[in-house]
Formats: sequence, C-alpha cells, structure tokens
Amino acid sequence: MDFKILFCVFLLSFTLYSQSTSQEQQIKLFYEQALTEGKAYDWLDHLSNKIGGRLSGSLNAERAVEWGKKELEALGLDRVYLQKLMVPKWVRGTFEYGSIITGPGMSMNVPVCALGGSIATPAIGLRAGVVEVKTFEELEALGEEKVKGKFVFFNGPMPANLIHAFDAYSQAVNQRSNGAAKAARLGALGVIVRSMNLRLDDLPHTGNMRYGNLPNNMRIPAAAISTNGAQLLSSMLALNKDLKFYLKLDCKNFPDVPSHNVIGEIKGSEYPDEIIVVGGHLDSWDLGDGAHDDGAGIVQSMEVLRLFKKINYRPKRTIRVVLYMNEENGLRGGTAYANEAKKNKEQHIFALESDAGGFTPRGFIFEANKQQFEKIESWEPYFEPYLADRFELGGSGADIGPLRNDEIVLSGLRPDSQRYFDYHHAANDTFDAINKRELELGAAAMTSLVYLVDFFGF
Amino acid sequence: MDFKILFCVFLLSFTLYSQSTSQEQQIKLFYEQALTEGKAYDWLDHLSNKIGGRLSGSLNAERAVEWGKKELEALGLDRVYLQKLMVPKWVRGTFEYGSIITGPGMSMNVPVCALGGSIATPAIGLRAGVVEVKTFEELEALGEEKVKGKFVFFNGPMPANLIHAFDAYSQAVNQRSNGAAKAARLGALGVIVRSMNLRLDDLPHTGNMRYGNLPNNMRIPAAAISTNGAQLLSSMLALNKDLKFYLKLDCKNFPDVPSHNVIGEIKGSEYPDEIIVVGGHLDSWDLGDGAHDDGAGIVQSMEVLRLFKKINYRPKRTIRVVLYMNEENGLRGGTAYANEAKKNKEQHIFALESDAGGFTPRGFIFEANKQQFEKIESWEPYFEPYLADRFELGGSGADIGPLRNDEIVLSGLRPDSQRYFDYHHAANDTFDAINKRELELGAAAMTSLVYLVDFFGF
Repeated sequence: MDFKILFCVFLLSFTLYSQSTSQEQQIKLFYEQALTEGKAYDWLDHLSNKIGGRLSGSLNAERAVEWGKKELEALGLDRVYLQKLMVPKWVRGTFEYGSIITGPGMSMNVPVCALGGSIATPAIGLRAGVVEVKTFEELEALGEEKVKGKFVFFNGPMPANLIHAFDAYSQAVNQRSNGAAKAARLGALGVIVRSMNLRLDDLPHTGNMRYGNLPNNMRIPAAAISTNGAQLLSSMLALNKDLKFYLKLDCKNFPDVPSHNVIGEIKGSEYPDEIIVVGGHLDSWDLGDGAHDDGAGIVQSMEVLRLFKKINYRPKRTIRVVLYMNEENGLRGGTAYANEAKKNKEQHIFALESDAGGFTPRGFIFEANKQQFEKIESWEPYFEPYLADRFELGGSGADIGPLRNDEIVLSGLRPDSQRYFDYHHAANDTFDAINKRELELGAAAMTSLVYLVDFFGF
Repeated sequence: MDFKILFCVFLLSFTLYSQSTSQEQQIKLFYEQALTEGKAYDWLDHLSNKIGGRLSGSLNAERAVEWGKKELEALGLDRVYLQKLMVPKWVRGTFEYGSIITGPGMSMNVPVCALGGSIATPAIGLRAGVVEVKTFEELEALGEEKVKGKFVFFNGPMPANLIHAFDAYSQAVNQRSNGAAKAARLGALGVIVRSMNLRLDDLPHTGNMRYGNLPNNMRIPAAAISTNGAQLLSSMLALNKDLKFYLKLDCKNFPDVPSHNVIGEIKGSEYPDEIIVVGGHLDSWDLGDGAHDDGAGIVQSMEVLRLFKKINYRPKRTIRVVLYMNEENGLRGGTAYANEAKKNKEQHIFALESDAGGFTPRGFIFEANKQQFEKIESWEPYFEPYLADRFELGGSGADIGPLRNDEIVLSGLRPDSQRYFDYHHAANDTFDAINKRELELGAAAMTSLVYLVDFFGF
C-alpha cells in the first residue's frame, strides 16, 4: 500500500469516525431532552384527561383537532394547517346489556359492548339460543339449520403461544371484523364475539366490524363480550346447550360528517420538496380515553418536531407531522392525505407511524426494498445504546399505508407488545396505563430515526 | 474439493442443521408449555396474595419456606431439602410519621417509611430543622457546623437521562445505603432520603441501609420520603429554610433468627456432579407483597424445573433450583449456599438468577470469560424469535454472587427495566402489577438457557 492510499484510508476512517460521533451526539441530545424536559407526557395527560375518547364524528374528536392545531402552532413550525375530509359517524348510544338466561327469571349479566359499526337490536332487545364456534370453518359446518334464529358466539381466543401479540391479534380478529356478516348469511339473529384480549378480565373490547355487501335487511347486531364473560358463557353452554342469551344495544350509524387531519411542518433547508412524514391517529374508540391507541402515537409524533425545534436542528428535508383522523373505523384521514399528496405531486421519501401503544420501544418495522433496508440496517448500532435496535421488515402502519409506492420507505415504531391487548379498545385504555419514560423513549427513538433519514437520505 | 471432503462437509452441515432444528424445537416446546399451561402465575398469586410480604425473620418468611418446599415436592423432583441459616430480624413497627412544620400548629404530613435496618426515633419523635443535599460532596461541604442537630434531606434523584433504569438506581442508591452513616458523623439527628423511584408519586420506597462501623450511640434514624413528598419538601425549603421536620419511627433490630434456603433438584443423567443452579430470592420487603421483587424470580425458577419434568426432558447435568432467603437485608442465603457448596466440593458450572422484575424479558447478562461468552453468544439466534436475544457482559445477581470463581458462568435474566422502580420496595409491588405473559416469557427464556447450557456445556 503506498503512502497516498494509506493517507486516503486514514482520511476516510477519520471522516467516518467523526461523522458517526456527531450522529451519536445528536441522538444523545434528542434522548436527553425527551427524557428530562419532554412534553409528550403532559400533552397526553391533556388529550386523555381533558379531552378523552374521541371517536370520529364526535364533538370530542373536533375538540382534539382544535387542540392539536393549537399545540402545533405553539411550536413555531413553518406551517400548520387542517386538511378537510368526511368521516363515518357511529354512536354507541345509552344501553348495552348482555345476559345469560338459564331458566325463567334466572339470568346473569355479562359485560358486553357494541362493536363499532353494529346496528342496534330491537328496542326490547333480542333473546335467543346460542351456538358456540371457534372458527369460520366450524360455523360453516354447523350450517343454516343449526344457526338460524340463534346468536352465534365466536369464542376463538387469541392464541397465547404466539410471541408477538399482534400476530395473535391477526389470527383472531376476523371473528370481530367479519363474524356478523358470515353468521347473518346463515340466518343468525346476532353475534357475540370474545374480546380481542390475551388475558382473562371483565372488560369488553370494542373495535370495527363490517357488514360488507350484506343487504341492509340482513344485517344483525354484533357485540363483544369480556374474556371472563366468554369463559363463563362457554362453560354454561357445556352444561346447558339450551340456555338463552339476551342482548340489547342501541347504537346507530349516521351519515358522514366533516372532520380534519391536523398537519404541521418544518421546511427543509436543502431539499424542501423531499417530505418526511411522522404521525399517528387522533381519533380513538369511545370506551377509554385512547391513551395507548393512539394518544401515545400522536404526542410522540408531535414531540419529534418539538425536539427538532428545541435543539434548534434545521433538517435538510421537510419534516411533517400528521395527526390522522379516522384510523379506527374508516381510514379516511390516511386516504385523504395520500390523495392530496398525489394530487399535489408531493415527493414523500419516508413515513413513520406510531400506533402500537406507548410501551418501551424495541425497534422499528420497515416496508423498504433491499437496498433501502441495507442502509437502514446500518443504522441499528445508533439505537443499540437505547435498546431500540430491532429492525425488521413487515407491515408498517394503517394511516401511512395509502402513501405506499415503489420509492417511499414506510416504517412503524415497535414497542413491546405483551400488554397492548390488555387495554386495546377497552375502557381501561387510559392515561394511568402509560409509563412516562416508556412514552418518552418512543418519542426519542422516532426523532432519532427521522433525523438519520433526513441526514443520510436513502 | 474431492468427494470425501465434500461428503464430510455434507455430513457436518446435516448434523449441524438437524441438531439446530432439534434445539429449536425443544425451546419451542418450553415456550408453548409456559405460555399455555404455565404454573408461574398461579404460584405467584399464592405467594403474593395468600402469603404476602415476607421479610427475613418474619413469620411470613417461614410460611413462604414451607410453601416453597411443599410446591417443589409436588413436582416429583429427585430431591427437595431445606438449608438452615441465621438471618437478621428487623421489624418496622406500628408508627411511621413524617411531617413538614412551617409554624406553630402548621404542619403537613408527607409519606415516609423507615429504611430497613434503621433504629427508631425517640418515642415522642424527632423535631428539627432540615438541610437539603443532592450528593455526599454537598454534605461534606456543609460540614458539621451546618448539619449538627438537623435532619439531612438527601434529595438526589435517580438520573432520568440514563436508559437502563438499573444504572440510574446505582447512581442514586448510595444516599439510601450510606447516607445515615455519613450524616451521623457530622452530627445530624436523622436522615430523610428521596425514594429510589424514577417517577413522581406518593409512595415511599424502603430498602436496606447500613451504619457500617458507626458506634451504636452515634446511630440515627433513616426514613425514605416519596418522590412527590421530596419535591414538596424541597420547594418549601426554598421558601422557608427554617422550617422543621417531624419524624417518628418505631422500628427495631432484633438478634438473628434461624431461617432456610429451599432447594430442589433433578439429577443429571450423564454428569450428575456438574451442577446448574437457577434461583431468585424468597424474602421480600414488607410494604407490598414482593410480586416483582422477587416473587417473580422465585416462581420463574420453580417453573424451569417444572417445565423439564412436564416435557419429560431428562437433563445431562444436575439442575437445581434455589429459593434463597435474605437477599434484601443480609445476603445470608446466597452466602450460606456458596459456603455449603464449597465445603461439599460441589462443582457448579452455571448459576442463573432472576431478580430484576417480572417484566418482558429482553435477554440475559453474563459473567463469563471470553471463550465462554463466545459460546454463549452463539446461542443468541435461539432467542431471537422470542425477542430475548440481548446477551451482554455485566453483573449477574446478588444471591449467586458468592458462587463466583474462575470457572463458573453467572447469569441474570434481564427484563425490561423501565417500570421496575415504580414498584421496587414500595407498597404497590403487588400481584396486580404483574402481567401473566411477561412473567411466563421470562420463565421460558430461563428454561431455554438452562437447557442449552445443559445440552452443550461450556
């Protein structure tokens, strides 16, 4: 090796080394600021406790829009604006009762709630026998003869042996989403679905259901039952297959109403037309206050831009935060944002979503091509000191999905998932279930990833 | 490459491949069994709710010994026995009061508790002025003149910017352990120590303190104050440096009493003299029921042996579970076990402890030499599907520490640490703070590691 080559290698190592050090220092700054003077936790306190549950189309969702806009404006961003869209409006109503009837005058209430999008029962409720199934195959095998005039009780648990809780959710959630449509075609009067929850407790978990192309006059009411309630109903059915179930729901679907995505941005100093999006969804289900789903993602995304401003770091590319409306029951916000971006020929290079709870971050998941992912994987060591260095390929996030094309990289924050379904869509998804540090660590990890994408590009 | 070499390579790959597959399958079996038919959670329910807090020397600690022995006997192990030892006995007593006095008749109670090992105040309590410090250096700088006749208020928080919560604990805990001895030498009347807790709440956290070689007549009472209480006291001191603090404690140290380690073992089929130990500590502090510290470690360790039996896997080496007594305030159990092992010339090749809470496991920490650790690191891929593949070098566990020598490998389960100090040594360290799956994942990870050590050796 002659001297000139040696010198070049020396220079190169030196450059790489000092660059790496500067990146590490920047990331350390983000973490220190997030953990010692972070704003995510206070924001979430307000969103959860002063606003609360904010289902699309509700007055509370509009309060959340106003709050989000006001808070982003207070950050001194280059631009804050609302993006108008229409959202579904479904209202839970006042009465939700479920009861197991074992004989005349002998009944036992069990915790139930309407699934989002369900129609109501008749005002006097529905009373009928119950057939229990664990899969759609079992349902089909029973056939119309055994199902007609009855409640179908979908009691397939989330499989406990799967390590990723989201995998267990994926395997079971079809019962909630499409169970009513399947059962209605066999003449069922209603469906009762075991809550999507890995533990045994007394809370029913709501969530979206769809009738698909089922004609209006064939639609049937759909309720979730708590996991303990499901165990009870199942064991009582084993003793008395002729018991009856009583269900009363008075939820209602209304015509679409207007709502908004809330958007804020810092203009890029070098490549302002290259856009990096970070976001979560502002709407939530109505039973809790949506602290984990997805208040956490909202305040973490806002914190990303606040940290850039606070540390006075001017990004090369435009960094945009989007508080998406209507992820839970329509995805209208994500769709509207992507349509508008396409119409305006905006170039999005990266979108990051946080919508998996406010728990300890363990890494990120990416939708990227081989070359992009190789570059991303080279950044893992930056996250190793923060225990957030698990980078994998997989599905990123619902709201950013409509942005998908051949060039953009999509990503999702991956917090620890074990406790997520203890709270998901239930009345206990509240601020007290959030740990301040875990929330802040997620915000800092997201900021660091956005920073690296902005700095290095793909 | 000639045919013979090619064939050998083929055979070798085949052997490696099928071996790996068989290891993977065995580990999968452990996980499936732990997650679907595990016993750790039920055991912990009993230990926490039917027995409760079990400070060394208490009647409850003896109930825990009896329970542990009975449960291990029910597993059909090859041997279950008690190991006698003497333990310190400290009793909290009935009265614990702390109050900030800002003027005649004007006082405000704050949550305090005696630190373990502290002497009592006089029966009428102590009333004195307060000097606040954040470090021992600040204390020394104040000197005897400013400290004499006062309470020293140690208010150094666990540093929030450190990522590993245990690192933050290490930086602050000296105030609790040695603050009283330091302050007493400067003539202080008592010490009030900010609780070792990363969040702000109203629970005082106890824990061990030591007077060291301080003469009996110089010893002073030591109490913890909740983090909110510490913030309050500090801000009131900023307005009125002459305020007084009132403290009343009636805790008491008694002479040592007898207690036991509980030990069970499965004899090795090939190398019965090579011993693998897995354990946690059976004693706990007295404020909560010790579910995280260290009920979780106890039931996870018991579950390791249960899983071996349940799956009918006969280990090559002897696997021993040790429920250590007296980790919290003396380490007598760990010391007695190691002394006995030395006396009997037992060969311990591996010791694993779980004493960092029942949260989602993220990996293990090891005390091992280079060659041993290289082998251990080659096992990381087995744990990758279970998200427990972070293997690092570092301090393993207190109870197994006395076994340390040049040959043994020591290891500690490393669960997520972010929430641990929300509960550590406080009244909320109770069963409801445990997530069943997280606890079970820890037990399965421990079983898998013990299995690999047994199968491959070092």
